[in-house]
Amino acid sequence: MNQYDFGTVGLGVMGSNILLNVADHGFSAAGLDLSAEKAASFEAAAKPGQSVFGTTSPEEFAKSLKTPRAIMLLVPAGSLVDLAIENLLPFLEQGDIVIDGGNSYFTDTNRRFATLKEKGIHFFGMGISGGESGARFGPSMMPGGDKLAYERLRPIFEAIAAKVNGDPCVAYMGNGSAGNYVKMVHNGIEYAIMQLISETYDLLKRGLGADDADIQKLFADWNQGELQSFLIEITAEILKVKDEETGDLLVHVISDWARSKGTGKWTSQNAMDLQAPVPSIDSAVTMRNLSAHKQERLLASEILHSASQQEKIDIATIAQSLKDAYYFAMINVYAQGLAQLSIASKEYQYEIDLKEVTKIWRGGCIIRAACLENFRSAFASNPQLSNILLDKDIAKLVLDRQQAARKIAKLAIDKGIPAPVFLSSLSYFDGYRSAVLPTNLIQAQRDFFGAHLYERTDKEGFFHTIWE
Amino acid sequence: MNQYDFGTVGLGVMGSNILLNVADHGFSAAGLDLSAEKAASFEAAAKPGQSVFGTTSPEEFAKSLKTPRAIMLLVPAGSLVDLAIENLLPFLEQGDIVIDGGNSYFTDTNRRFATLKEKGIHFFGMGISGGESGARFGPSMMPGGDKLAYERLRPIFEAIAAKVNGDPCVAYMGNGSAGNYVKMVHNGIEYAIMQLISETYDLLKRGLGADDADIQKLFADWNQGELQSFLIEITAEILKVKDEETGDLLVHVISDWARSKGTGKWTSQNAMDLQAPVPSIDSAVTMRNLSAHKQERLLASEILHSASQQEKIDIATIAQSLKDAYYFAMINVYAQGLAQLSIASKEYQYEIDLKEVTKIWRGGCIIRAACLENFRSAFASNPQLSNILLDKDIAKLVLDRQQAARKIAKLAIDKGIPAPVFLSSLSYFDGYRSAVLPTNLIQAQRDFFGAHLYERTDKEGFFHTIWE
Repeated sequence: MNQYDFGTVGLGVMGSNILLNVADHGFSAAGLDLSAEKAASFEAAAKPGQSVFGTTSPEEFAKSLKTPRAIMLLVPAGSLVDLAIENLLPFLEQGDIVIDGGNSYFTDTNRRFATLKEKGIHFFGMGISGGESGARFGPSMMPGGDKLAYERLRPIFEAIAAKVNGDPCVAYMGNGSAGNYVKMVHNGIEYAIMQLISETYDLLKRGLGADDADIQKLFADWNQGELQSFLIEITAEILKVKDEETGDLLVHVISDWARSKGTGKWTSQNAMDLQAPVPSIDSAVTMRNLSAHKQERLLASEILHSASQQEKIDIATIAQSLKDAYYFAMINVYAQGLAQLSIASKEYQYEIDLKEVTKIWRGGCIIRAACLENFRSAFASNPQLSNILLDKDIAKLVLDRQQAARKIAKLAIDKGIPAPVFLSSLSYFDGYRSAVLPTNLIQAQRDFFGAHLYERTDKEGFFHTIWE
Repeated sequence: MNQYDFGTVGLGVMGSNILLNVADHGFSAAGLDLSAEKAASFEAAAKPGQSVFGTTSPEEFAKSLKTPRAIMLLVPAGSLVDLAIENLLPFLEQGDIVIDGGNSYFTDTNRRFATLKEKGIHFFGMGISGGESGARFGPSMMPGGDKLAYERLRPIFEAIAAKVNGDPCVAYMGNGSAGNYVKMVHNGIEYAIMQLISETYDLLKRGLGADDADIQKLFADWNQGELQSFLIEITAEILKVKDEETGDLLVHVISDWARSKGTGKWTSQNAMDLQAPVPSIDSAVTMRNLSAHKQERLLASEILHSASQQEKIDIATIAQSLKDAYYFAMINVYAQGLAQLSIASKEYQYEIDLKEVTKIWRGGCIIRAACLENFRSAFASNPQLSNILLDKDIAKLVLDRQQAARKIAKLAIDKGIPAPVFLSSLSYFDGYRSAVLPTNLIQAQRDFFGAHLYERTDKEGFFHTIWE
C-alpha cells in the first residue's frame, strides 16, 4: 500500500517507456491499463531489483501510490483523457497531482485544470516529445500549469529527461495550458521541417535525377555540421533501410499519402486566431492534406503536364546552395513558431520564457537541432525578443544565405517540383522585412465595396471614401 | 396590420439597401432597428408611392408583416443574431420564415436551424455578396437550408438579385448551412484574389519601379478582356482617386495593416479540418496577419536587407507574362475554393450543385469575373467534376500560362517582393499534378520516431519497421 513514487495511466508505448525510464532512475513505478497483457508485459520489461507494478484496477493503482499521489495520464487526446480522469477520481484525495502527458488541445487543459482545482487536485498539462525512444531514454518535457505541483515532481522529471551538457530538457513553461501550447507549436514546427526535408528529397530525386545513395550521403553529411538535427539524422538512416520483401529501398514502397494526428493543424488554426503568421507551418499542413487526394493526383498527372525546365544540372554545382537554402528555410520555420509562442504568451497570459523553451528543445525532442543553441543564446541576450530574425547574429545567418534561398526556390519552380516550405519561408522573410506592404490597396478595396473604413498613415481615426 | 411582404431586422447599410431594392421591385417592405434615426432615414430613402415602414418595436414590426412572415436578419454575425431571434420569437407564429442574411459561421446556422424547427419556424442561412451597392441594386445571394421556405420567397429574391444574361444570381445552394458555407468560401476566394492584386501592384511598383498611372492603365486594360472582374475593375478605379487633403493618390496615405472580419480565416481553418488544400487562401489570410505587425516590420526592415536583383526591367517586356501569371494564379485560387466546396458538400451532406454556385457568382458578388462562365460551363459538362483543373478546357487555359507563372514567380523572388499567392498557386498546381509526392518519406519519419505505422504501395494494411 502507498509505496510507489510515480504512476501512469496507460501502458502503451509512451506509458510503459516513461515508467521504465522512471524505474531506471531509482524511483518505484506503477502503471494502470485496461489490458492485463500490457500490465504484465510492463512488469516483465523491468530490470531485476526495480520496483514496478502493473494493474488493471483503478482502485488498486491508486492505493499503490504514495500520497500525495503523482499520476501521469498517457492516453490518446480527447474524450479518453476525460474518461481516465473520471475513472480515477473516486480514489484520489486532495493534494494529489494529475499530469496530462498527451497532446491535449490547450483549451481542454484549461477546462480540466479548473474542474480538478475545485476538487483540490493539482492538474498540469505537460507536452512530451521524443517518441518511443525519447520516452524510454530521455524525452524533452514541457510542463505548464500548477507550478508548485511541478516543483514537487521536478526531481523525477529532471532525472528522466534528456540532458544537454548536463542540463535536463525539462522546465516549467508557464501558466495554465502553456505546456500543451508549447508542445503544439513544437509539433507545428516538426511538420514544417519534415515537409522541408521531403521537398529537398523531391527536388534532388525527381527534379535533378539524383539517386538515393547520393541523397543519403548528402543528408548524412548535413548531419555533421550546422544542420545537425534529429530529423536530418533519421532521414539519413531511413534512406539506408531496404525492404526485406522486394529488396528495394523501403521508402520506395511506402505510400505517399500522409496521415496526421492534428497537432500541426491546431498550430495553424490557432495561429490564425492570434494573427500570428506561420505560413511554412500552414504549407506543411496543407501539403499533407493535398497528399491525401491520391486518386485526383493520379488523374491530374495525366492532364496537367509540366512545362518545366529539362536542362540537366550537376548536383555538385548546387549542393552548397541547397544546404544554405535549407538552413535559411529552417531558421524561418523556427522564427514563425517561436513568434507564435511569443504572441500566445501575451494573449493567454502564459508568461512563457522562450530562453527556457529553446533550451529544453535542444535535446530529447523531435525538433532538436544544433540551431536551437543559437536561438537560446539570442533569447538569453534579449528575453523580450519578439522574433529571432531581429537578433543580429541570427539575422546574419539568414542574410548570408538569402541568395542561396532565392536560387533554390527558382530551381524548384523551374523543375516543376512543389516546394511550398522553401517558397513560403522566402515569402515570410520578404514580407516580414517589408516596412511597407501593399495591404493599403486591400484596405481601399474593402472600403470601396463594403464601406469597411480604412486608417491613414498621417492621422488617427477611421475614414470612408465614396470612391465612385 | 399584416400588409408588408418582406421585412429585415437591421437597417444598417445592408438592411436598408436590401429593403429599398425589394421596394423597387414592387414589394412592400418593413424594417426593424434599435435606432429610430435609422428607421426614419430608411423610410425617407424610399421613392414616392413605395410602401415601406420602419420601426423600433419588434411587436409592431411582426404585426406589420403578412403571414406567414418573411423576415431577414441583417445584423453582425455572432451573438447579435441569437439576440435578434430571441427578441422576435414572442411575436412569431408557426410557418413564419426567418432568414439569416449575414456572414454567420455555418455551425451556428445548423444550431439555429434545429432550435427554430422545434418551434415550427422555417429558418435558412443565406450568404449575400455585393457589398453596399450590390444590396441596393442587385446582389448575388446564396440561400441554403429549408428548401420549401426558400421556394416561397423565390419570386422576391429573383426580383432583387443581380442578373447575368437575364438569369438571376440567386439559387438554392443545398441542405442545412450550405448557404453560409458557400458564402464563407466565396469570401476565402475574395481574400486570395485581393492579395493577388496587391502582390501584382507591389511587384510593379516596389519591384520594378512602375508609376501608379501606368499601373492604373494596366489594371484598366486587364478589365477589358479575359481578366474582366469586379476586383480588377475597382482596383483601376481606386488608383485614380486623389486624396483631397494631400493631393497625393489616396491609396498612398492608407495604412498598410489589414483588418478583417474573419470569414477568410474560417475558410482556411475549416479547410484544414476537411483536409481540403487551399494554400492560396491560407497565404492571403496569413499576409493580412503579417501586415498587422507593423512595428516589427519597421524594425525588421532595418536589419534584414535585401540581396535582391537590382537589374532594371522594362515593364513592357513582362506585361504579357504578368497578365498570364495573374490568370494562372486566379484559376488556381478558384480551383482550391471550389474543390473545398465539393469536399464540404460530401462531408456535411449539403448536396451543393457547383454549376449553380458558379452560375450565381457570375454577377452581383465581389468575386464575379469573366472566368466564372468557364467554370459554370465545366460543371455543366461534368456535374461530378471534383476540381476544375481536371476539365480539359480549363486545364488548357492553365497549361498555356504555366511558363509565364513560373517566370513571374521567379521575378518576384529575384526582386525580393513577397508574392505568396503567386507562389502558393504554383506549389498547388505542381503538387496537385504530382502522381507521386515525397510524402512517403514523411510517413517513414513518423514511423521511425513515433511508431505511427505506414501504408505500402504494394499491399493493404498498416506496417511498422524497426528502423535502427
